[in-house]
Amino acid sequence: MKETITVRTLAKALNISIGTVSKALNDSHEISQETKQKVWDLAKALKYTPNPSASNLRSHKTKTIAVIIPEIANNFFSQAINGIEAIARERGYHVLIYQTHEDTANEIAFTERLLSGRVDGILISVSSGTNTEDHFRELIRKIPVVFFDRVIEDIDAVKITTDDYESTYLATTHLKEAGCKKIAYLYALNNVSAGRKRLSGYLDALRDHGLYAGEELVLNYESAEASQEQIKDLLQLHQPDAIISSIEELVLPCYYAAETLRLNIPGDLKILSFSNMNTAPLLAPSLTTITQPAFEMGKTAAGMLFRILDKKQVDTAEVMVLKSTLIKRASTSTENNSSY
Amino acid sequence: MKETITVRTLAKALNISIGTVSKALNDSHEISQETKQKVWDLAKALKYTPNPSASNLRSHKTKTIAVIIPEIANNFFSQAINGIEAIARERGYHVLIYQTHEDTANEIAFTERLLSGRVDGILISVSSGTNTEDHFRELIRKIPVVFFDRVIEDIDAVKITTDDYESTYLATTHLKEAGCKKIAYLYALNNVSAGRKRLSGYLDALRDHGLYAGEELVLNYESAEASQEQIKDLLQLHQPDAIISSIEELVLPCYYAAETLRLNIPGDLKILSFSNMNTAPLLAPSLTTITQPAFEMGKTAAGMLFRILDKKQVDTAEVMVLKSTLIKRASTSTENNSSY
Repeated sequence: MKETITVRTLAKALNISIGTVSKALNDSHEISQETKQKVWDLAKALKYTPNPSASNLRSHKTKTIAVIIPEIANNFFSQAINGIEAIARERGYHVLIYQTHEDTANEIAFTERLLSGRVDGILISVSSGTNTEDHFRELIRKIPVVFFDRVIEDIDAVKITTDDYESTYLATTHLKEAGCKKIAYLYALNNVSAGRKRLSGYLDALRDHGLYAGEELVLNYESAEASQEQIKDLLQLHQPDAIISSIEELVLPCYYAAETLRLNIPGDLKILSFSNMNTAPLLAPSLTTITQPAFEMGKTAAGMLFRILDKKQVDTAEVMVLKSTLIKRASTSTENNSSY
Repeated sequence: MKETITVRTLAKALNISIGTVSKALNDSHEISQETKQKVWDLAKALKYTPNPSASNLRSHKTKTIAVIIPEIANNFFSQAINGIEAIARERGYHVLIYQTHEDTANEIAFTERLLSGRVDGILISVSSGTNTEDHFRELIRKIPVVFFDRVIEDIDAVKITTDDYESTYLATTHLKEAGCKKIAYLYALNNVSAGRKRLSGYLDALRDHGLYAGEELVLNYESAEASQEQIKDLLQLHQPDAIISSIEELVLPCYYAAETLRLNIPGDLKILSFSNMNTAPLLAPSLTTITQPAFEMGKTAAGMLFRILDKKQVDTAEVMVLKSTLIKRASTSTENNSSY
């Protein structure tokens, strides 16, 4: 399909405003004869045809939306994208995906590039490396943006999240009920509110249930490569009887660390993780998960973006919170509980 | 039909000669910076796509490449994309990802859209729904394209694949050596050469090893939803002692079907699949896989695309074949072989 010549095309080409072009095309007395002639000449050269139904020039221009996420090799995000695409497809929109790999520099470079008008709107899940929000504040002034899962708290944009605090609170309570007394926590995403809320849910549950809450039980995630060694050290030095992982990426390092130390899961060590991996029920042992409504979140976020593109009223002050589910499986079962 | 934006269009619109426009597009020192800027701005505004044989403007213009793949919720593709991004990052390029969901209509619509000049080059893994190749023939005339994994055989473009035929031949031989006599095959991707080669490797190995090769043992993949029921029927009706799955998506349906029928893996049924899932070693039982060099394939494909963008000589006649690895695990072990 050839590019349609619009008022915007003419404005850009002549380096004047869309309003000026529009008025010139309508032979407005507000516009100088010279400018009008320029606009008419270009419109003629490019065979510009006014579109009578194009009441709004900004929306429905590219029929494309962008999704900016940290990683696609992550079940939550790939499922969320499929939710986004389900809605986009209904609307005849294409979806471009861009991954930041948790790097703010990528995020900034890409958001800037998107401002050149190649998409109509953007869905963003913030990189955990993000320690500045200026590029987002700039962005939301210029293009419709919806944040999902990893959101910027105090920004004037629609935000879709899950109940991060309640999820870890509930998970910690579940482990307490399974007899755990020393629950470790693998802390990631400390730069984003979702990560901090997950930690709070765990800490508050420890306090409310009168469980031990030593600082040494909270392991700060450094890198995928180092994590298995870090977890092994944690298990050896502090002997927790359970681990809550705040990200899916740490599930395999946990299993491998337990295997290396010949710890039985769940007998010696119970494991529970945020995860949307479809193999969770088939792992040895099957993994107890906090499963986020990824597909639904994607659908909801895309739905809100299209509401904005349709110029409908949206409430940017309210955060939409979808519920995650604690799915109990063998990795936190009380069978084979060790005696110590 | 819209008018194609040519050098002539730009010349007319700016009221300068075609030669001047052409030189400006080639960043000639003969043309003033002011004129060049005018030409570039208009070319950009009108999404002018130069004829590749006539101009080098197309290269290094957007500093963006596109990757078109069937699904991101697939470990092979997410790893391949990470390989592509590793190379793109070194070159200061951004990567846009687009998934076709195996739908030719999406593939056609998107390749057409990319011709408007928003990317410098494209990496494609063909949708299995693709039954026409015309859009690709059109595409390669206009923009640098590299195909990977799922390629079009007789097209004048660089192609990166794995040894699909040898992989299933080797896998079938492994199962024969493990004592299997009736090996079923889950056939997918029958519209792409990779899929057909995988089937051939299996069939030839059956023949060479004198194993039974009934048509009823080849199950044609229909949909993710139907597959578990299909596999269950196959197991009940024909009692194969092994299954080779040509796609990762069928691993869980196989495990669940075996569980439903109370078949022991690997005692009653051995399972082997093409897969890049990182949980394969932790499944119950751990899964024997044909693991493709996904990251390396992505790197190689991106490397070849940049060679083209750098105007280096590339051989489009030769297919680059990277080797997959058969990783033997418990799901095809001879322990617990059933007696029947």
